[in-house]
Amino acid sequence: MDQPARLLDYRSKKEHLLIGLMSGTSLDGIDAALVAIRTKENGEIEDVALREFYYMPYSDELREWVMSLCSVETARVDRLTAVHYGLSEWYAYAVGQLMEKAGVSAAEVDAVCTHGQTIWHIAGRTPFPGPTGMTEVRASLQIGELSTLAERTGIPVVGNFRARDLAADGEGAPLVPYADFILFRHATKGRLLQNIGGIANVTVLPAGASIEEVVAFDTGPGNMIMDQIVQIVTEGKLRYDDAGRLAASGVVHQPLLDRLMQDPYYQIKPPKSTGREVYGRAFAQELSAEGAKLGLSGADLIATVTALTASSIAAAYLQFVIPTTKVEEVIVSGGGAHNQTLLRMLQSQLGTEMTITTTQQFGMPDDAKEAVAFAILGHETLMGRPSNVPSVTGAKRAVPLGNICF
Amino acid sequence: MDQPARLLDYRSKKEHLLIGLMSGTSLDGIDAALVAIRTKENGEIEDVALREFYYMPYSDELREWVMSLCSVETARVDRLTAVHYGLSEWYAYAVGQLMEKAGVSAAEVDAVCTHGQTIWHIAGRTPFPGPTGMTEVRASLQIGELSTLAERTGIPVVGNFRARDLAADGEGAPLVPYADFILFRHATKGRLLQNIGGIANVTVLPAGASIEEVVAFDTGPGNMIMDQIVQIVTEGKLRYDDAGRLAASGVVHQPLLDRLMQDPYYQIKPPKSTGREVYGRAFAQELSAEGAKLGLSGADLIATVTALTASSIAAAYLQFVIPTTKVEEVIVSGGGAHNQTLLRMLQSQLGTEMTITTTQQFGMPDDAKEAVAFAILGHETLMGRPSNVPSVTGAKRAVPLGNICF
Ligand SMILES: Nc1ncnc2c1ncn2[C@@H]1O[C@H](COP(=O)(O)OP(=O)(O)OP(=O)(O)O)[C@@H](O)[C@H]1O
Ligand SMILES: Nc1ncnc2c1ncn2[C@@H]1O[C@H](COP(=O)(O)OP(=O)(O)OP(=O)(O)O)[C@@H](O)[C@H]1O
Repeated sequence: MDQPARLLDYRSKKEHLLIGLMSGTSLDGIDAALVAIRTKENGEIEDVALREFYYMPYSDELREWVMSLCSVETARVDRLTAVHYGLSEWYAYAVGQLMEKAGVSAAEVDAVCTHGQTIWHIAGRTPFPGPTGMTEVRASLQIGELSTLAERTGIPVVGNFRARDLAADGEGAPLVPYADFILFRHATKGRLLQNIGGIANVTVLPAGASIEEVVAFDTGPGNMIMDQIVQIVTEGKLRYDDAGRLAASGVVHQPLLDRLMQDPYYQIKPPKSTGREVYGRAFAQELSAEGAKLGLSGADLIATVTALTASSIAAAYLQFVIPTTKVEEVIVSGGGAHNQTLLRMLQSQLGTEMTITTTQQFGMPDDAKEAVAFAILGHETLMGRPSNVPSVTGAKRAVPLGNICF
Repeated sequence: MDQPARLLDYRSKKEHLLIGLMSGTSLDGIDAALVAIRTKENGEIEDVALREFYYMPYSDELREWVMSLCSVETARVDRLTAVHYGLSEWYAYAVGQLMEKAGVSAAEVDAVCTHGQTIWHIAGRTPFPGPTGMTEVRASLQIGELSTLAERTGIPVVGNFRARDLAADGEGAPLVPYADFILFRHATKGRLLQNIGGIANVTVLPAGASIEEVVAFDTGPGNMIMDQIVQIVTEGKLRYDDAGRLAASGVVHQPLLDRLMQDPYYQIKPPKSTGREVYGRAFAQELSAEGAKLGLSGADLIATVTALTASSIAAAYLQFVIPTTKVEEVIVSGGGAHNQTLLRMLQSQLGTEMTITTTQQFGMPDDAKEAVAFAILGHETLMGRPSNVPSVTGAKRAVPLGNICF
């Protein structure tokens, strides 16, 4: 069967098997998820199931090559061109490993859906000499050539998802809220999907919401500050506070927490987003000096910044979500879901009527969620359906995302 | 009708209307061709007709931006990201102008097929840290985001053609020979499609040839040396020798021509390719100094380099084509087709049994041929058919080229 024929076939089937691939900004590696999607008669998704998961770390050398592309000073066009193709050799390898682990063959897989590796993202717009004079464009660059991946795997590929949302005048991000909606919406329960990665962000899914009612925004820092403080306090011996044990052994310094919570970002009405650059090395070092001046122990400081993540999340809900939306459940994902102290603090701030669980309890391991999300987006594209959320990205309209390579 | 449905529709239709877009290495602008393609019952192309043509020059500022991306020293990843999207605003504009000129609406056009702008091309292979250790990859970067073009025009887009041939271990170039085969093959006449751009290259189409029998290679310099010598001789007043008038007024210096013809490139067996860098400023300046030493007038020197292009083309035919392939016709395209002296010289070297014509006489203006070629390639992709020529690019297999964006 030739590949366009496979597409025709795709649309008439009710059961689909896809592979989602994600490689994030932390440049650690590739998350690969084998996902089964069942569609209803009307083409809507009825069910999504994670069948298998495989993680493939980048080699140090690849990480260096990719990292060099992510900065204006070190990016070279010859290297970018090579990595654009070469990275897909990694993706193809990860697909092969995942299929082997799952015991499925390429012929059984309908499509590979790949996010690619972001090497440059322009927030907002940038000036450009257009055909009718100076104008502004939105732009974001994800690399990992689709053709290489299609040729190596023999499976149709969907990728380059952010571009169409940008073309429709959206921010091109976040795209995961669509998948949150598909995976976690509930007819009678209001749910908050709280991801705690480097940055913390929430997707608000009111009970019985339609996609137009979905809201998503960054609540503030996720693990970034905690991780850096742990590294400073332990002099690099620990990279993060496993299970939140260090934080649990310290005492939150309330005046310092109160001061940190005065950051005006927390008062801005959503949609809003913040970036890794805000909570960088300088931020952590100042904070560590301030802790020392106040006579805090390392554990106290860790407890305090853990409370900062919890408080900024809780504050966002209390100010911007709960007043208008009835919420029964918070479902936490991302590495921060493993931090028991953080979850306990969040629970105590939100009160016991609010249930706090993790995506893990829904059969979705942390590291798999984003890879599953891109499988869902690619599925919708193959079905001819839009999958950006204009209320979240700011796009002028809902559009099918991505390019297809047979 | 949603866009994947348009694809299904595409494959069942017999008459297709496409737009081909080309922007070449000279960074002058965009060639846009409206092309009607009729297919046979078995899916093969029956007929290709150029319906309308539009040329849109780049602004000086855009040219500078793009040019800055084509060199390792000046390419910046932030600018590359912006131009990748912004260039498609130009493509979309050109599509709009072409449709207006032709009096057709977006709904009537089945697809836009875009080559994009090459900013980096790796000849051969380059080292890369792959998933199983150090390896080599092929790579070439064409920019012009497909999603932007699709969103602006409302027409499905096919583009990024070179990538799949590279993925199949081909050079990713040349791709036009497939279109030469479709447009100019003849059941009983052997034909040579001779393009004379900066470099001169030929596609050999034996009588009644199948695609597997097509050969193509660079014969040597095209207009590059002539243009530079004209500029030196006229102190920049003329950019090229209009209609070959200057060459016609001079006398070929045979010993100099003989020496130039000793370049070992002409003895290499095809497939082979040469590059713009070979015939650069240094080459032209040395030649001009040598002409002065020999006491040649400007016109004599121009006549001699015009003869070099003609002789290197004729020598290629006599050594590598005619011994094995019966050839009745040479069909010249590219700017060099306007140089009457060049054509006359070529005719006198090949003898009068060989007919020399131009693509113009087949209803295909010079500047339109490449744009038409990419419309043909995009058509084949939408039909699910391969369109690279492995015997020409060195690819391991024939593959459908490009990515599709609905
Ligand atoms: N067992 C654990 N206990 C506590 N924290 C953990 C644990 N495992 C992971 N984490 C935290 O999660 C972080 C990694 O999270 P995640 O993988 O979501 O981040 P990321 O991929 O960098 O996120 P993003 O790209 O979304 O910002 C670690 O740096 C650490 O802070
Ligand atoms: N009327 C003319 N008389 C003689 N030569 C001409 C005429 N018009 C164009 N040319 C030649 O053609 C050249 C332009 O050719 P063409 O557009 O095929 O080149 P190009 O786009 O740079 O080619 P490529 O990218 O394929 O190398 C001019 O530089 C000139 O040498």
